[in-house]
Amino acid sequence: MAEADLTLARGRPGPTREADNPRSLVVRFGPDRPLKLDAGVELSPFQIAYQTYGTLDANRTNAVLICHALTGDQHVANVHPVTGKPGWWETMVGPGKPIDTNRYFVICANVLGACMGTTGPASTNPRTGEPWGLDFPVITIRDMVRAQAMLLDHLGIDTLFAVAGGSMGGMQVLQWAASYPERVFAALPIATGARHSAQNIAFHEVGRQAVMADPEWRGGRYLVEGTNPRRGLAVARMGAHITYLSDAALHRKFGRRFQDRSNPTFSFDADFEVESYLRHQGITFVERFDANSYLYLTRAMDYFDLAADYGGVLANAFRGTETRFCVISFTSDWLFPTSESRAVVHALNAAGARVSFAEIVTDKGHDAFLLDEPELFAIVRGFLAGAGKARGLPPAD
Amino acid sequence: MAEADLTLARGRPGPTREADNPRSLVVRFGPDRPLKLDAGVELSPFQIAYQTYGTLDANRTNAVLICHALTGDQHVANVHPVTGKPGWWETMVGPGKPIDTNRYFVICANVLGACMGTTGPASTNPRTGEPWGLDFPVITIRDMVRAQAMLLDHLGIDTLFAVAGGSMGGMQVLQWAASYPERVFAALPIATGARHSAQNIAFHEVGRQAVMADPEWRGGRYLVEGTNPRRGLAVARMGAHITYLSDAALHRKFGRRFQDRSNPTFSFDADFEVESYLRHQGITFVERFDANSYLYLTRAMDYFDLAADYGGVLANAFRGTETRFCVISFTSDWLFPTSESRAVVHALNAAGARVSFAEIVTDKGHDAFLLDEPELFAIVRGFLAGAGKARGLPPAD
Repeated sequence: MAEADLTLARGRPGPTREADNPRSLVVRFGPDRPLKLDAGVELSPFQIAYQTYGTLDANRTNAVLICHALTGDQHVANVHPVTGKPGWWETMVGPGKPIDTNRYFVICANVLGACMGTTGPASTNPRTGEPWGLDFPVITIRDMVRAQAMLLDHLGIDTLFAVAGGSMGGMQVLQWAASYPERVFAALPIATGARHSAQNIAFHEVGRQAVMADPEWRGGRYLVEGTNPRRGLAVARMGAHITYLSDAALHRKFGRRFQDRSNPTFSFDADFEVESYLRHQGITFVERFDANSYLYLTRAMDYFDLAADYGGVLANAFRGTETRFCVISFTSDWLFPTSESRAVVHALNAAGARVSFAEIVTDKGHDAFLLDEPELFAIVRGFLAGAGKARGLPPAD
Repeated sequence: MAEADLTLARGRPGPTREADNPRSLVVRFGPDRPLKLDAGVELSPFQIAYQTYGTLDANRTNAVLICHALTGDQHVANVHPVTGKPGWWETMVGPGKPIDTNRYFVICANVLGACMGTTGPASTNPRTGEPWGLDFPVITIRDMVRAQAMLLDHLGIDTLFAVAGGSMGGMQVLQWAASYPERVFAALPIATGARHSAQNIAFHEVGRQAVMADPEWRGGRYLVEGTNPRRGLAVARMGAHITYLSDAALHRKFGRRFQDRSNPTFSFDADFEVESYLRHQGITFVERFDANSYLYLTRAMDYFDLAADYGGVLANAFRGTETRFCVISFTSDWLFPTSESRAVVHALNAAGARVSFAEIVTDKGHDAFLLDEPELFAIVRGFLAGAGKARGLPPAD
């Protein structure tokens, strides 16, 4: 029976090895430098795992912070230590790429609550010697950004030339611009919004329930008890993955084509190509991601509502900002539709900010920000060139 | 912890009591009248549970068949025997309603593969004395319609004045018109399509995987083993339910409002109203539906591709038809968007069929066909009045 397929994801959770001892640069913040969380508690000690690319210039003016999305990590432009696959944004970041590591010093940190070396629920709780699990405090996008600011302090970088990211990464970009306007010269929020919609919260809640319904989740104590809620997490990933694509993209990629045959099997095997594809997405995700991290990061996205922190008026989040913004959306993105980006643009306009806005025509859905989209690359390249000139960076060759 | 919530759905599966001995009218087809299935096997014996409303006229010309959707059943316009709630289409069907039981003899049968008394995986397999489970053959929309035609033969009804239904019910309407054009005077396919899209197959596959990932599913043998995959089925229902609504409807109903408080709890409890709503949808569904039926019926929808049975040309499914069609879609339905209805209308036009088409403006999403939509009621009432006149039925009072 088809039931077997999701059980192919076996073995102990892959990412937990990275949680405490990542194959990355790491900065550890001791008891003297606690992280104050929105939940009203302090996290201490904690650590941030990060990668850098390129060279910081003498004036420390060419730093670009990349903020990753829900299931991304700090491995933007290098081979991933767990999966062996290329970095998740190698089309965008690298020598000669739109975010050109020959010109910019690129930093990407694993977000707070994730599982690739920055402190999160899979990390060891120093008080117990066991993984944090659900004792880890619930965190917010603002907490992630606070932690990143501490990393920049550690690196001696006052001002970022740019901060860029898509989806949950774009939320962090907006939070950066709101929390630390003086530290952000240019901001690129891509395929994102200033709040999570009711529909998006709903999809996240289904994913969380899928994880928590798995008996191997054990109330979040699976790492201690030696179980692994792989099936629940795989189901969560399958459902989420549909929202990252568009109906048109799914139709173009798979249509109603049958898998390895021309007729239905009259069974519950993966008859259609789209079924096999989704099952594969679920199984491979489980190998590289921690189930509790999935709960915490989706929760952080759900809580994100930038306007709420500014009296319900989004423009107030950006009042008086000197930051230059480039807001980008995609026509077929139904998770963060253009209307969400437009709301950000309207708020920036109302705040008198410098903002350019591009809606890119594509049928690739939300995931377009990760894919080969020449128009996206051209816009990012052009925006950074203009901002670089204003910043007094040397021109590109 | 919030983990507890989905476990509120307890006890043995509610609908299994109805599977063999439903509180409905029942017709049993013995070994002399097997049902030939698309899977290449014969189902025999089998039974159909159905409800009727109103009175068949002397000429047997006023029969209206209602086809129910995935999670519907035969209890269109009476109190449901399991849930105690009103029938699922009481706004549409009843005395003086658009499908007026003072004028029409309304029939609705539980579909093949379901769990409210028509033979399905929860029914007893006469060869083993145990529930069919996954030994039940995989069925198609065409099989459902074949079974309904046998019911009409049993009732002595040659020709339906009308056949109507939404979603999976609409698929059956289209199949009726294609398979038995001489038996259908008027057809009302609502919020449906002539095939299931790749995105819809993908959502169904996630739901099936959620069910099959539940260890209590036991390879489909949960009724025999005394378990109940309630958590998996609840997760499946939660995910599906999002697709029945629109982003706008969710926003209007719930927005980002917190449940019973004004601030986040910084936990994984149901913080947002939309989360509580979805959990409730999941829990109540489990009380009235069989998990294996959910697998079989979603599979039947996925397999539906009417054009494929007619050389890939949808118009050929309707060539020479005398049936009058009224096709209805809803602007905010993203599960069966208007483009799917329009494809049906184009095919009917190409086949030279009588067809009227209405796209109703609403933000209620796919579920609009079940809700209080005055424009829908007016269109159905008007279409049936016109068809009734053509059919020679007495005019409405």
